[in-house]
Amino acid sequence: MANKPVTIKDIAEKLNISVSTVSRALKNNPEISLQTREAVQKLAKELKYQPNPLAVALKTQKSNTIGVVVPQIVSSFYASVVKGIEQVADEFGYQVFVSSSNEKMEKEEKNVNGFLNMRMDGIILSLSRATSTYDHIHKIQDMGVPMVLFDRTSKELEVSKVVADDAAAAHAAVTHLIEGGAKRIAFLTGPEYMLFGRNRMRGYKKALKEKGMEIDETLISRCDFTVEDAKNASLELLKRSNRPDAFFAINDELAIGAMTAAKELGLKIPDEVAVVGFSNSRRSRYMEPSMSTMDQNPKQVGREAAKLLFDQMEDKPGAKDVKEVVVHADLLVRTSSER
Amino acid sequence: MANKPVTIKDIAEKLNISVSTVSRALKNNPEISLQTREAVQKLAKELKYQPNPLAVALKTQKSNTIGVVVPQIVSSFYASVVKGIEQVADEFGYQVFVSSSNEKMEKEEKNVNGFLNMRMDGIILSLSRATSTYDHIHKIQDMGVPMVLFDRTSKELEVSKVVADDAAAAHAAVTHLIEGGAKRIAFLTGPEYMLFGRNRMRGYKKALKEKGMEIDETLISRCDFTVEDAKNASLELLKRSNRPDAFFAINDELAIGAMTAAKELGLKIPDEVAVVGFSNSRRSRYMEPSMSTMDQNPKQVGREAAKLLFDQMEDKPGAKDVKEVVVHADLLVRTSSER
Repeated sequence: MANKPVTIKDIAEKLNISVSTVSRALKNNPEISLQTREAVQKLAKELKYQPNPLAVALKTQKSNTIGVVVPQIVSSFYASVVKGIEQVADEFGYQVFVSSSNEKMEKEEKNVNGFLNMRMDGIILSLSRATSTYDHIHKIQDMGVPMVLFDRTSKELEVSKVVADDAAAAHAAVTHLIEGGAKRIAFLTGPEYMLFGRNRMRGYKKALKEKGMEIDETLISRCDFTVEDAKNASLELLKRSNRPDAFFAINDELAIGAMTAAKELGLKIPDEVAVVGFSNSRRSRYMEPSMSTMDQNPKQVGREAAKLLFDQMEDKPGAKDVKEVVVHADLLVRTSSER
Repeated sequence: MANKPVTIKDIAEKLNISVSTVSRALKNNPEISLQTREAVQKLAKELKYQPNPLAVALKTQKSNTIGVVVPQIVSSFYASVVKGIEQVADEFGYQVFVSSSNEKMEKEEKNVNGFLNMRMDGIILSLSRATSTYDHIHKIQDMGVPMVLFDRTSKELEVSKVVADDAAAAHAAVTHLIEGGAKRIAFLTGPEYMLFGRNRMRGYKKALKEKGMEIDETLISRCDFTVEDAKNASLELLKRSNRPDAFFAINDELAIGAMTAAKELGLKIPDEVAVVGFSNSRRSRYMEPSMSTMDQNPKQVGREAAKLLFDQMEDKPGAKDVKEVVVHADLLVRTSSER
């Protein structure tokens, strides 16, 4: 275990003076003789004395630190959001500590409790896939700790949020595929309860309807969030006689699965099968052919979330009102859908 | 700002009893009448009273949290190391908080101070590229806080470390290229002061010597850690009359630069130019052709670092000795070097 840190009491004992004299000498209080002040300060330096920061925090109730809970640390989207948060926090002279829920609700609760125990000045959080109840979120609110949610949020929570306009983004991606000549667009998505999935589904359907195209529910495939599962789902779709000529996927992982399946069947991308993913993961650019995707501007998401949080922490007028900031996604047309 | 949390004093005032009675009632001390105990506990629940965790930490000097400082959060290597650390921390019921130095020494110092202020029970750290002095590391030692370094370390520091055997890894990669028929192997590396670069250079030269090949210093190219810079360096090398027939790069970024350059010049990979990278980044697998690379087993690095740290925190016999754990890298032969 750690050596016990040097305290004011240690200094007082060593110099045979009172604790309150040491305390005042360290603050350079002129009531204390210059000689004593110098002796105290010299010894404090020698012993590497540091004011106990927990005691300081206990007094001021400020840690100058914000806590960020992300569903995964191994994700370029969340990593870039954290970068955006750090940029704003740097300006305010705040530290950012990150913890990951690993997509588990139980771990998310632990992360939140850990941050509350550490008296973070504010918390920014994106819900895990497994999070279905919100007691831990309510606890942050009950304790009056400023909080902002981003990306994965819930309609049930009365908290300021930074969200993507998922419906508009999906609408843009699917419209682009239709304008490139696609007639049968498959949609690879995840479990039904996920809000962003439902919103992207809305955009997908709206784009089809607008162009007078029929919605064929057999082209909508739900899979796990793995390349392997998406590949299998895509193989199944592509082996049908009336196979899809385009894929829109809810994330890049699933889009990579679709591209892998098309390649395996010897289908040309984008000529026979066009593909658009979602989230502009690093690998999307280096796929062969390079993969079209939606750039969600994660750094901006992070910056907006941090700005909302600092507004609350600084108690700006209206900062307590529940706000929703929408960060738009941009369509990045690369080779996989250029036709 | 946060609402002031409810304290024992608030409860005492509301019930018109003493603070020490409330304190003992909350601990269910039988010296206090059952009636009072029940009244206190009921009110504490209603007011959502929580023992002040900073006060608790102040007493026990334990936060059940370990802090991890990484040079970058946007990196699959560091993200995977963090996952490994989390796996071990989970077993011990500890939280993991991560902060990023963004490759800046100043930020690394702030991260360390932040963690020390928060009274982390231990710190795991990988040095930033810019770190050239070590006062902040010495401070962790002076305060007696358990610490382990990984990956980017320094010979100047007397601290337990988890390191890669970089020389052996580079030796394996270059030997593989020679055995595939390469006669002129370029080495893309970074600035000279970086320890891991020097070690990989050693392995590169040793492999060449062992096979009786001459070391041509003009084939060693130092570049920034960007795809763009590596591409330009590679273009220059490949345009020479006696161009290299293989590249070994100090990381996957630089190897991608080499592949991009070869493709731009219409050279066939691996037939005319073979490439091996380093660190098994996510995108390496999805390159076309898929890229050979060294897998540094980052999760194992994280697990070993966490194990060393918990040994120190639990004060196991010999845990204070400076240890060095070597995690070996595995060569992943993919298409870019298979010939």
